[in-house]
Amino acid sequence: MTAENTHCDAVVLTSGGLDSSVLLHHVSRSSARVAALCVNYGQRHNREMECARFQASAAGVASFFIVDMGCLGTFLKTSSALIQDGPAIPRLDALPESVRQQPPTYVPNRNMILLSVAAAYAESMGAPCVYYGAQAQDEYGYWDCTERFLERINTLLALNRRNAVAVKAPLISNSKADNVRLGMKLGVDFAHTWSCYRGESMACGVCPTCVERIKAFQLVGGTDPLPYSDGPGS
Amino acid sequence: MTAENTHCDAVVLTSGGLDSSVLLHHVSRSSARVAALCVNYGQRHNREMECARFQASAAGVASFFIVDMGCLGTFLKTSSALIQDGPAIPRLDALPESVRQQPPTYVPNRNMILLSVAAAYAESMGAPCVYYGAQAQDEYGYWDCTERFLERINTLLALNRRNAVAVKAPLISNSKADNVRLGMKLGVDFAHTWSCYRGESMACGVCPTCVERIKAFQLVGGTDPLPYSDGPGS
Repeated sequence: MTAENTHCDAVVLTSGGLDSSVLLHHVSRSSARVAALCVNYGQRHNREMECARFQASAAGVASFFIVDMGCLGTFLKTSSALIQDGPAIPRLDALPESVRQQPPTYVPNRNMILLSVAAAYAESMGAPCVYYGAQAQDEYGYWDCTERFLERINTLLALNRRNAVAVKAPLISNSKADNVRLGMKLGVDFAHTWSCYRGESMACGVCPTCVERIKAFQLVGGTDPLPYSDGPGS
Repeated sequence: MTAENTHCDAVVLTSGGLDSSVLLHHVSRSSARVAALCVNYGQRHNREMECARFQASAAGVASFFIVDMGCLGTFLKTSSALIQDGPAIPRLDALPESVRQQPPTYVPNRNMILLSVAAAYAESMGAPCVYYGAQAQDEYGYWDCTERFLERINTLLALNRRNAVAVKAPLISNSKADNVRLGMKLGVDFAHTWSCYRGESMACGVCPTCVERIKAFQLVGGTDPLPYSDGPGS
């Protein structure tokens, strides 16, 4: 696994979270040379990125590259709880229904930024496609995780006159429980995936993504190896 | 002019080149609070960025911010002559017809990256729109300067559920000569705009963008204040 420029068959956007880690292993089974791409966009913590590196190695990808765009945090922090020095991470049970369609954990236009960088990377490396880990349960709060978003970003990228890159999201109809099930089948080591928005020494168990992850493991009847400091998983 | 986070009415993507400098002055006449955004994506030189800063000050914008994404150059250099350590800049007269629809000076997916970052910036600052300086003569070689690109990126961004940002390119039907004419009317100081792809102490006069600029001034009957080291403008 190197960070060098090498030709590859597929680029996988990976954050180190549960969904993109499962995706990375899933794609690695069917593509010969996978390049894993991770982006620092000014996140509150780097727990996820450490997991992304671990999973890239575990999946045996050809290359792993972190794109450092941490300076985006300078302005993204004004409106997103996921950014360092941004507003506080909400508990899911304290999140009013009215803001759930675009909650405080939404990062302005994040997925379009990540996918446009990943498409540029793929184009430079001669890869025909980029994979990203959108799943069905993200749809409630994030317009940039929907099937319409996927369709329209592909319509846009198709205008490229030489090497049009396709964006693929094979898990977009999966629930998080489906992804846990798939990950178990693929042998993903979930102890090295990080979901909690807070990024403290232990996952909090009460932020929206912790609650969703805990429920997913319960539904599947699997064991989440991560300890939680609060909530039903603690 | 500060680099701080302030609310604004419009974000203008500016490179310090001729077209985006004219655009910046044009938009500044009709918008109260303009934020100028400049992106370092690993360009071969920073002559343009110095000009962008000058023009932002001359246009009296509310803020000027350089987004440092220089690390993109690490992979973009494999395929674009505009990137530091990339392939050599071609002379226009040595460019085969067959590659002109996506020439060596094309940067993989650049405008989608820049516009997605600018849209995130606009969304964070509460601005409803982003302006970029596409003009009609770019259409020949760059799919990401076309009207279809503009239409499709807006269709994509329109999915945002709260603050959909619109991308506007009011000069997209202009030739470069039209932009020179408009810039003269707006009092743009063209001595502080930089077009040459090479970024040496003097503009080269023979790369594609120098040739286009020289012709545009000739057509309008105006005087380009820049000296050239070679070609018809030298």
